[in-house]
Amino acid sequence: MLKFTHIRQKPPQKLTTKRQLLIACSPLRTHANLSTIIRTAGCCGVREVMATGHVRLIERIARDGATHVTLTVKSSLPPALRKLKRDGYTLVGLEQTTNSTPLSDYAFPAKTALIVGAEREGLSDACLELLDAVVEIPVWGMPFSHNVATATSMAIYEYCRQFPDG
Amino acid sequence: MLKFTHIRQKPPQKLTTKRQLLIACSPLRTHANLSTIIRTAGCCGVREVMATGHVRLIERIARDGATHVTLTVKSSLPPALRKLKRDGYTLVGLEQTTNSTPLSDYAFPAKTALIVGAEREGLSDACLELLDAVVEIPVWGMPFSHNVATATSMAIYEYCRQFPDG
Repeated sequence: MLKFTHIRQKPPQKLTTKRQLLIACSPLRTHANLSTIIRTAGCCGVREVMATGHVRLIERIARDGATHVTLTVKSSLPPALRKLKRDGYTLVGLEQTTNSTPLSDYAFPAKTALIVGAEREGLSDACLELLDAVVEIPVWGMPFSHNVATATSMAIYEYCRQFPDG
Repeated sequence: MLKFTHIRQKPPQKLTTKRQLLIACSPLRTHANLSTIIRTAGCCGVREVMATGHVRLIERIARDGATHVTLTVKSSLPPALRKLKRDGYTLVGLEQTTNSTPLSDYAFPAKTALIVGAEREGLSDACLELLDAVVEIPVWGMPFSHNVATATSMAIYEYCRQFPDG
């Protein structure tokens, strides 16, 4: 008798309240990155991802996230962020900046909009000036910066660690 | 004066001891997945990734991880895992199994080999029976399972959260 055997189709965790985390993405160059973010969001019970720029999902990568996560496409992020702030979201950027907080030290408010930068440019100044907080993921070695989908997935994981029940 | 401004080329965190985390991968079908794992490993100061199967790195994805992380290629994982165990590593699988522990509840031993399953099949029984522990990442929604590189990155993040100094 093996101590560890596969559990296929294990039922997911239950949320006692709906996830209040929203992901808002700067224009991403690589469709694979947005698609990976959508898959992670779906797995984590995130209900909405906001995207900008030329948006196309790769379904092979996004999987059921493509149908279970609402993808909202905006022409520009700053007006959308102002609207989110009016709707009560705390705007948390994911970036290495002055005054940024290491990801695992940051106590996320339940109603968080995580604002993700583009692959090369990161977050624009127009976005940065709207943020309430910035979290950064520590790095210890080359290439000194995570892929944007990897970083976003780590941040979603950390949020869910803090809010296992929603 | 903006509160948050980009820090380019921010110096990485310092490790007081070398990272003792090692990643060992089942044969992965997708070169992008191994390459993503290598990039994350590099950023986190992980020094060795063990791979099996048909191994090829996509440098555009792996970035400097391709040169800064030692990639060891094995023809089969179980003999390599037995060797790691003899060398003092705790073998921790990343999988949904009976007796698996939620990732953030698991206190990693410093000297951990994280054993990663293949995209479709997960970990083989021959690997599972060698493991000391299995960690699983909770999911709350469809598609109910993370991409292997995403899951591995979350697990590396969690290990580093527990060992910020190495």
